[in-house]
Amino acid sequence: MAQMRLALAQVNPTVGDLTGNALAVREWSAKAAERGAHLVAFPEMMLTGYPVEDLALRASFVDASRTALFQLATDLAADGLGDLPVVVGYLGRAPYLSPGATGEVTRPLPQNCAAVLHHGQVKARYAKHHLPNYGVFDEFRIFAPGKYLTVVRIGDIDVAIAICEDLWQDGGPVAGTRAAGAELLLVINGSPYEKDKDDVRYELVARRAAEAGCTLAYLNMVGGQDELVFDGDSLVVNAAGQILARGPQFDEDLLIVDLDLEPSTVEVPDSSGEGLLHVTLSDTPIAPYAAQPATLAPRLDPVGEVYRAVQLGLHDYVRKNGFRSVLLGVSGGIDSALVATIAADAIGGENVVAISNPSKYSSEGSMDDAAELAHNLGLDYRVIPIAPLVSAFLDTVKLTGVAEENLQARVRALIWMGLGNQEGHLILTNSNKSEVSVGYSTIYGDSVGGYAPLKDVPKTMVWELAQWRNAEAERRGEKPPVPLASISKAPSAELRPDQVDQDSLPPYELLDALLDRYVGGAQGRAELVGAGFDPSVVDKVVGLVDRAEWKRRQFAPGPKISSLAFGRDRRLPITSRWREQDS
Amino acid sequence: MAQMRLALAQVNPTVGDLTGNALAVREWSAKAAERGAHLVAFPEMMLTGYPVEDLALRASFVDASRTALFQLATDLAADGLGDLPVVVGYLGRAPYLSPGATGEVTRPLPQNCAAVLHHGQVKARYAKHHLPNYGVFDEFRIFAPGKYLTVVRIGDIDVAIAICEDLWQDGGPVAGTRAAGAELLLVINGSPYEKDKDDVRYELVARRAAEAGCTLAYLNMVGGQDELVFDGDSLVVNAAGQILARGPQFDEDLLIVDLDLEPSTVEVPDSSGEGLLHVTLSDTPIAPYAAQPATLAPRLDPVGEVYRAVQLGLHDYVRKNGFRSVLLGVSGGIDSALVATIAADAIGGENVVAISNPSKYSSEGSMDDAAELAHNLGLDYRVIPIAPLVSAFLDTVKLTGVAEENLQARVRALIWMGLGNQEGHLILTNSNKSEVSVGYSTIYGDSVGGYAPLKDVPKTMVWELAQWRNAEAERRGEKPPVPLASISKAPSAELRPDQVDQDSLPPYELLDALLDRYVGGAQGRAELVGAGFDPSVVDKVVGLVDRAEWKRRQFAPGPKISSLAFGRDRRLPITSRWREQDS
Repeated sequence: MAQMRLALAQVNPTVGDLTGNALAVREWSAKAAERGAHLVAFPEMMLTGYPVEDLALRASFVDASRTALFQLATDLAADGLGDLPVVVGYLGRAPYLSPGATGEVTRPLPQNCAAVLHHGQVKARYAKHHLPNYGVFDEFRIFAPGKYLTVVRIGDIDVAIAICEDLWQDGGPVAGTRAAGAELLLVINGSPYEKDKDDVRYELVARRAAEAGCTLAYLNMVGGQDELVFDGDSLVVNAAGQILARGPQFDEDLLIVDLDLEPSTVEVPDSSGEGLLHVTLSDTPIAPYAAQPATLAPRLDPVGEVYRAVQLGLHDYVRKNGFRSVLLGVSGGIDSALVATIAADAIGGENVVAISNPSKYSSEGSMDDAAELAHNLGLDYRVIPIAPLVSAFLDTVKLTGVAEENLQARVRALIWMGLGNQEGHLILTNSNKSEVSVGYSTIYGDSVGGYAPLKDVPKTMVWELAQWRNAEAERRGEKPPVPLASISKAPSAELRPDQVDQDSLPPYELLDALLDRYVGGAQGRAELVGAGFDPSVVDKVVGLVDRAEWKRRQFAPGPKISSLAFGRDRRLPITSRWREQDS
Repeated sequence: MAQMRLALAQVNPTVGDLTGNALAVREWSAKAAERGAHLVAFPEMMLTGYPVEDLALRASFVDASRTALFQLATDLAADGLGDLPVVVGYLGRAPYLSPGATGEVTRPLPQNCAAVLHHGQVKARYAKHHLPNYGVFDEFRIFAPGKYLTVVRIGDIDVAIAICEDLWQDGGPVAGTRAAGAELLLVINGSPYEKDKDDVRYELVARRAAEAGCTLAYLNMVGGQDELVFDGDSLVVNAAGQILARGPQFDEDLLIVDLDLEPSTVEVPDSSGEGLLHVTLSDTPIAPYAAQPATLAPRLDPVGEVYRAVQLGLHDYVRKNGFRSVLLGVSGGIDSALVATIAADAIGGENVVAISNPSKYSSEGSMDDAAELAHNLGLDYRVIPIAPLVSAFLDTVKLTGVAEENLQARVRALIWMGLGNQEGHLILTNSNKSEVSVGYSTIYGDSVGGYAPLKDVPKTMVWELAQWRNAEAERRGEKPPVPLASISKAPSAELRPDQVDQDSLPPYELLDALLDRYVGGAQGRAELVGAGFDPSVVDKVVGLVDRAEWKRRQFAPGPKISSLAFGRDRRLPITSRWREQDS
């Protein structure tokens, strides 16, 4: 058998930060070398961050990525790391197409690439074959597909390289790995978190390892990028489906695994024919060494996983966009209590400005709950009543009914935005997925803000997360942060006397179950009624969802945690006369 | 030679309105029959409207489209129109793929289809081969490509069918048309308006007619759909490149053209082998008849074309979303003056509510200009000063500098939204493309609204459009609507004393030229500086554009008139540390 110590650098790059990302590659490569690794890998498009979206269509950015790659190879050698092969994702350009080749190429043809850096040089490259163009992904829009399988020989081990979607689609690099007789398939990923996706990933990785007939190392990035959260959770699985190592969820890590592989028996000279690029990095077998037990990071429970995803999404949106603090309205209700708690966990309570804006309809209890929350979390808490401003406005323009309710929400927003502008905070909006679905929020009112932590969290899960966080505090011997009254009381916007959400909406248990099928599953009316929902409830909810499309289009980004989030995941026209009732 | 009277129904469907769109097909087919047509065609996805975006992924909607198609065939026959072949675009489903066929098909595979209806039946179908997935288009995301060329025989003329992008890409249906020996290539389109695109279209159509070796009929739809405006401008061109007929721009029309074609000499039995589906609708040659001269609609001038595009976009957004009136703020400046004028032209001045909100920084002249504009257009004009509200607010929360400037804009928005909610108007936002580019607007302030007519109109073109409209009025012997002072004065937000836009921005001539290259052309810093722009101006403007991405993400939709509009046309991350200065 042949040994190899593989290091998977499960790290957190920032889109567009070529300098910072390259520096991270150097730092983590040094750690891998210290740990005696024979090969270190970095995630999909590590050098540019991921996803870069239409930045890929800007020639200056593609050029900068390629220049940074060559510089990185040089710098690694100068760091004394030239002997360590480094696999790193970057934004490249199709080498086999030139302007004019397909008739009218007026722009560069970017590719989603991996490079193998060794001895100060770019020794091999690989371009992603399968380009996801569903859900949040638009890769067919921006990338040209790769055509070659890349295999590098290190000692007497052949390592095949693939990128993310290559693993999810039949054929291609997985089949090529078996045909090439490689002993290790290294897949670098930028695979966004979704609830329950980790199980799907393990099953896929195990199946593909069996198909490739070799050990498969699945490396995923960590971090938040606009609406996506990458959860790490890297995996190494052998051809029999055994997990050899597993990285943590939502944290950076250098996952080290000592592999015991069959030495390669295939005689492959360096070549680039027949769809295969084979490059020998070294032909000296790796000397036997004492293997160490690998890490198997513990799994988070299903609710804790969502909490951490939202927390990391918020943390990285704040940090990567250069903010130091956030501001939100706190009402004493559960949504603002949860957002404040997550924000305090992400960036520290002292960096969270919480504004209570009582109106004449706010209950004493609500104000007390907001104050208690702020005290528990150590927030920068301020109380600014809105009644005088609302009256002044109503003296100028007479409004009644929903227009008056909306006015209160908008006066609050005016205060938050004013303070946000004056003091430089990122504004958070507290709307949850149930509300965003049915349009139960005031546009330019409670929906204002640059980031929406609960945008993909249904109301029923809001309660679960709050309870999970309180239980977590108790487990740690700390005071539970979310006031019990905020969890137990009937949800209310408190915009008119004795108002509760259930005046206008079905109970949240029912609403969320229906939304999961209509929004998440794109089910039609017949399916919804067939699943047992009352037809009048179906018609009401479906109508609310459809009519709120224009509001959602102006809504802030928030972290995707479900299989179908609002935003780029679900692209519907605003102008549409289609009503499920017609079907 | 063989004669054929072809009718191209250049009409305006509504997305999702299967009933209304089917009715339009029946009405326009009846007109075509009255005019003695032997074949009538309707635009791409006429039955569902276009583009349907992710509605294509909803099985209930695909089913409804297919049901409506069969019902339409029956209804046309019942209308006494069974003898007239009708080509109509609809949303279909791939017939040759079933769940499981490609491994894991968990959703239907929708197709962008054309059907030929005749004698109460669906006689032939065609599915679009080439699926655009660039710019505003996401068709690779939602459709399965077609594989067969469809040719129908009418008398002794073979007519091949293609859909939109099939014409723009090399190979495929155009080459197939020549191989099949068809005499007419009928292409149904949903091709959005872009400035200067009509010339590109003519050149393309002429080139493809030559390649197909036959006459080519290019039918385009009319109407606004969210951010797109379809401009009609249908064309019939023979193989020598001569224009035989041309429809109007931005208006519905039944374009009738008498064709004189070579009778088919190809013996093709009805077949579906070898990628060709050939269906004989009738084998009785069309009897000779007296041909009529065809229409060659006059062309609009380049500025008038943009005006009409914005007007139609606004008109259809209002109408198709069920509004009867709009509300906007009027400041006396050129942007609001132009939006009000276009709105009055689109839906009538009496349906336009114009609110003047003078502040302590508003000049007398501005207020007079707003009043004059409102008088000229017959608007529902109201004056609501904001000074008392701004003071009341500043008594509660102390704000200074930009935060105070923004407050004024947001107090105005509060008034507009309040009245909009109370009275049921669609709110228009007046921001132009130059401002949206550099973030020169207050989010939740002057940027509030459901539709942004000038979103893709740069400031320099705002002046051109206003001058064009005034000249047009003079040409018609009417009073020019836009006050001359609104056109001639230095642009200002009037949020502090003596403020003008050029305090913060380069002159608009320069700014727009730079933005055209940076936003429209995705040029990098080196190219911009190489084109002669001052490096410090480049750095400033590029920085402003990059930092405004989060604001644009929350901006209202507006009609695309350039080759690269904001919205789905330009998908950039908010979180990005890439700065062109790094390159």
